Amino acid sequence: MLHNGAGRATAARMLDLLRTAGTLSRVELAEQSGLTAATITNVVRRLIDDGLVHEVGRESLQGRGQPRRLLELDPSAWYAVGIQVDRTTTTIVVVDFAGGRVASAGLRGSGTSGPEETVTTLADHVTDLLHSAQVPRDRVLGVCLVTHGPQDRERGVLLTAQPTPEWLEYPLTSTLSQRLGLPVLLENDATAAALGEQWAGTVATDTFGLIYMASGIGGGVVVDGDAYRGRASNAVEIGHVALSGGRTPCVCGNRGCAQAEAGPRTVVEQVLADEPLAERLGVRGAIDSTLADFERVARAWRAGDPAATAILERSARWVGQAAVTLVNLFDLDTVVLAGPAFVTTGPLYQRLILAELEERALSRTLSAPTVLLSTDVGTAAAIGGALHVLRTIPVDRDTLQHRSSAPAPEGEP
Amino acid sequence: MLHNGAGRATAARMLDLLRTAGTLSRVELAEQSGLTAATITNVVRRLIDDGLVHEVGRESLQGRGQPRRLLELDPSAWYAVGIQVDRTTTTIVVVDFAGGRVASAGLRGSGTSGPEETVTTLADHVTDLLHSAQVPRDRVLGVCLVTHGPQDRERGVLLTAQPTPEWLEYPLTSTLSQRLGLPVLLENDATAAALGEQWAGTVATDTFGLIYMASGIGGGVVVDGDAYRGRASNAVEIGHVALSGGRTPCVCGNRGCAQAEAGPRTVVEQVLADEPLAERLGVRGAIDSTLADFERVARAWRAGDPAATAILERSARWVGQAAVTLVNLFDLDTVVLAGPAFVTTGPLYQRLILAELEERALSRTLSAPTVLLSTDVGTAAAIGGALHVLRTIPVDRDTLQHRSSAPAPEGEP
Repeated sequence: MLHNGAGRATAARMLDLLRTAGTLSRVELAEQSGLTAATITNVVRRLIDDGLVHEVGRESLQGRGQPRRLLELDPSAWYAVGIQVDRTTTTIVVVDFAGGRVASAGLRGSGTSGPEETVTTLADHVTDLLHSAQVPRDRVLGVCLVTHGPQDRERGVLLTAQPTPEWLEYPLTSTLSQRLGLPVLLENDATAAALGEQWAGTVATDTFGLIYMASGIGGGVVVDGDAYRGRASNAVEIGHVALSGGRTPCVCGNRGCAQAEAGPRTVVEQVLADEPLAERLGVRGAIDSTLADFERVARAWRAGDPAATAILERSARWVGQAAVTLVNLFDLDTVVLAGPAFVTTGPLYQRLILAELEERALSRTLSAPTVLLSTDVGTAAAIGGALHVLRTIPVDRDTLQHRSSAPAPEGEP
Repeated sequence: MLHNGAGRATAARMLDLLRTAGTLSRVELAEQSGLTAATITNVVRRLIDDGLVHEVGRESLQGRGQPRRLLELDPSAWYAVGIQVDRTTTTIVVVDFAGGRVASAGLRGSGTSGPEETVTTLADHVTDLLHSAQVPRDRVLGVCLVTHGPQDRERGVLLTAQPTPEWLEYPLTSTLSQRLGLPVLLENDATAAALGEQWAGTVATDTFGLIYMASGIGGGVVVDGDAYRGRASNAVEIGHVALSGGRTPCVCGNRGCAQAEAGPRTVVEQVLADEPLAERLGVRGAIDSTLADFERVARAWRAGDPAATAILERSARWVGQAAVTLVNLFDLDTVVLAGPAFVTTGPLYQRLILAELEERALSRTLSAPTVLLSTDVGTAAAIGGALHVLRTIPVDRDTLQHRSSAPAPEGEP
């Protein structure tokens, strides 16, 4: 049953429903999937045989008939790893089969290292984290590497020469896969974060936008539960939306882009332009410390520093303008904020982006805009990447068999 | 076979393939649809029995085996009507079952009339056009009314109080349907135009954006052959993308929007601000003559008038900036221009929008941008609406039977 395409898809759907709900009865699985009770019974039997699902307790029906047995995923059946990496930060998370976070690590970014060195470091970090978390490598279904665009997801290469020229077209996923002896997927950071929010069920709608702010600004859109991909999955570049009144030249060749006017690097540079302020806040401006410097500004805002507040409020209003364009083009009423730059500043950006949407979004009278903070604001992209592995790589006996006959990773006996 | 859902969908797919290709053999239908030869044979037999498809000539196979018989749609099997209406223009087209244009009418817009009066006028125009074209009303599959947003497509009402308050929530499609005795659909003008381009097969990609300029500016995006709809089908409002350096207050409550900076009304107002120029060009500025005035400016540009050229070039560069945002957010490399405002000015806007994309679009180095003029630039929205009818309303014996038992339209015996 699970060894053909349709059976696999049905099994994957059952697993998704259980991952989002936590526990469900067979009857609820049938209701939510629209499949017959007989199909559910067959598929669930196989999932239990494969050790992916088990029965827990009984749902009380208040005395009416036999209580239904509830099903849940076996968290320890499989694991997945999400790695978000950019110049200034690396976040690695390990999630279990039920989507629960088992371990995470926040580390420095790739800096100006080339891809070869970075991949080696990432492989070591993953090995260490799996070891610390006591997760056996042969129970790891796969890894998702999450970066900003542009990417070629199918070939697993970046289409950018940032931060150094060797990154462009370097065989990123295949090299990391070889080092780890595990399948490796590539995904856009903002899209991963958006899909993660969708799968976690924290957003009340299945059509929403997400603004992802790390050292740059990216965006993702989920429509009817699926990521908007466009021509080649390099969509929703909200950091490169030109803003009314914007004049600052951007690296992309345009002027007045959201990232150039309002991104964390620009915030840091505005602080640096005021020497006493930079001194007071401890902002030094090294290119690989943008997020750390931004965090210093954020803490100064939280402590009530008026200069830091003015600079961040200006940034938040600019990002709010970009959100208006996002909402007007994609017909949204809900925007989620995620990414390490929102960890401290989230409430400030949330308030001012909402104010801009309430004042300027075209559909504000048809459907009131909502701005939410991600539940995993700092690690949303890595979490989304790990969930992407659980949803994308099939788990069945074929996978298992193939894995056990695959060569051991480099450096292992 | 055609009376159940799956059979209907298969039949509709065959009809679509034939409508786009003109003629196909059964073997080609099987190849392009991925269905078995047996299914194709069954479905085609029924389509021929129903008078929707007939055999024409034979495809030469250069002496190898028996030549294949070619199939084509019977153009006179059914007809569809597309109506594009806004304040300044009305365009009505009648297309045959093969998608060929049978008749069209360009008329004045709704002006400041209420919806009741406009619907009555439109029903009369449709009746007159069908009569002139000698198309029997009982062979008209349906009508698609095409307007700018926001709309509620399912309920067939506008969600805007433009141009007069009675339009908001007026039962537009049901009233017109009653007057004509025909099914009436509602669609966004830019989306209809984009789908029309897709179905006509004039664009080499199935993922592209469309900028629609009438008296306002709208947009549509087709992804993998389907319209991007967003939350409630009021997406791609490219007229309300704020532009870098833009300052002009817009009706939507924002500032510096593409429509406020660059739309035909703004072009006309810039001409009016220069009295001798307005006099020379014959621009008078009545609110319901925006497109006629814009056309006067366009003709002056074509005749080499430097002042008219400067004003239009400024507008085209602004629209080009909005196109950069469209392309960056939706990950596109192809933009089509359609709408009555491009009838004369098309080549000028095409050149300058392309220049902006080549200079500023984020993905310009990954995939060279292309800007195309619609093949039906002035009537693309109405044509797209009519094609939408042919693709959406099922044609089979059920439809026919239901239609013949329906009451005659008002005012007919």
